[in-house]
Amino acid sequence: MTQLYLIRHGIAVERNNLIKDEDRPLTDIGTQKTAKVAERLKAIKIKFDIILSSPLIRARQTANILQNAGLTDELQDFNPLFPGGNIQLWLDWWLNSQYHHDQSIIALVGHQPDLGNWAETLIWGSSNSRLMVKKAGIIALDLPTSTNPISNCELFLLTSPKFFVP
Amino acid sequence: MTQLYLIRHGIAVERNNLIKDEDRPLTDIGTQKTAKVAERLKAIKIKFDIILSSPLIRARQTANILQNAGLTDELQDFNPLFPGGNIQLWLDWWLNSQYHHDQSIIALVGHQPDLGNWAETLIWGSSNSRLMVKKAGIIALDLPTSTNPISNCELFLLTSPKFFVP
Repeated sequence: MTQLYLIRHGIAVERNNLIKDEDRPLTDIGTQKTAKVAERLKAIKIKFDIILSSPLIRARQTANILQNAGLTDELQDFNPLFPGGNIQLWLDWWLNSQYHHDQSIIALVGHQPDLGNWAETLIWGSSNSRLMVKKAGIIALDLPTSTNPISNCELFLLTSPKFFVP
Repeated sequence: MTQLYLIRHGIAVERNNLIKDEDRPLTDIGTQKTAKVAERLKAIKIKFDIILSSPLIRARQTANILQNAGLTDELQDFNPLFPGGNIQLWLDWWLNSQYHHDQSIIALVGHQPDLGNWAETLIWGSSNSRLMVKKAGIIALDLPTSTNPISNCELFLLTSPKFFVP
């Protein structure tokens, strides 16, 4: 199994007319909560072989916080994590990457509802918007490496910061 | 929405020839880990209007730990939580109970694979054994009160003690 962590960006400044949506940064509270989530992941001794991030500022800042906490040595922007991105593009990347093996641990930092929809597709083959993940929340799955992952993955974690950070 | 917490019993002594399966008690480690999960739920200020428990010893001991932590004033044995029990019996109970309203919080203490299967049925309408919940782990759902809950519930928490207890 490959472990896949889908991490939603932290709390960002609200949409407004002064800034493009993709440039909205994390708020101070969003930065702090995200850092606490990162610390907890570190305490559990999780280390990602790679973090792929949506290029939007609020996602990229979230990914930077995870990297700065020591959770990965490898961070890359990944365009299919833009809002509305297609999971098949990620699957194609994974299947042809050095991370397609049974010991790898991958994190994706992105947006709702996409992360929940991707997870549902991996677990049940289609998405119904039934997975709730708050900002800086986490969904984590086991992905089989010897069969088609779509509808064959298992969910082992879904949490908001409220339940994850003491 | 009614909030439904499905809580798996803690670690019990292994099956052996000296004791009936239904009488197996929690181990010391199982008791300790379950108590820590209970403490965390308490710290998050969760209070269950009622806990329904499988009558098996390992489940009932788990439920007792939750009650002793102050998580509920009402604990009852509930036979459909026996291994292999039918979710429809629980739904019939809920729909006709005083707990079928938008502010209620209910906990069920039981067994795998039943708890995961019940959750999948509530979320997606059928079960595929895709939800992994370890001993003393938690699955939590929002249940609509104005429509058929089957395939209409939302998942907001799935965690093992490892991710929940710091």
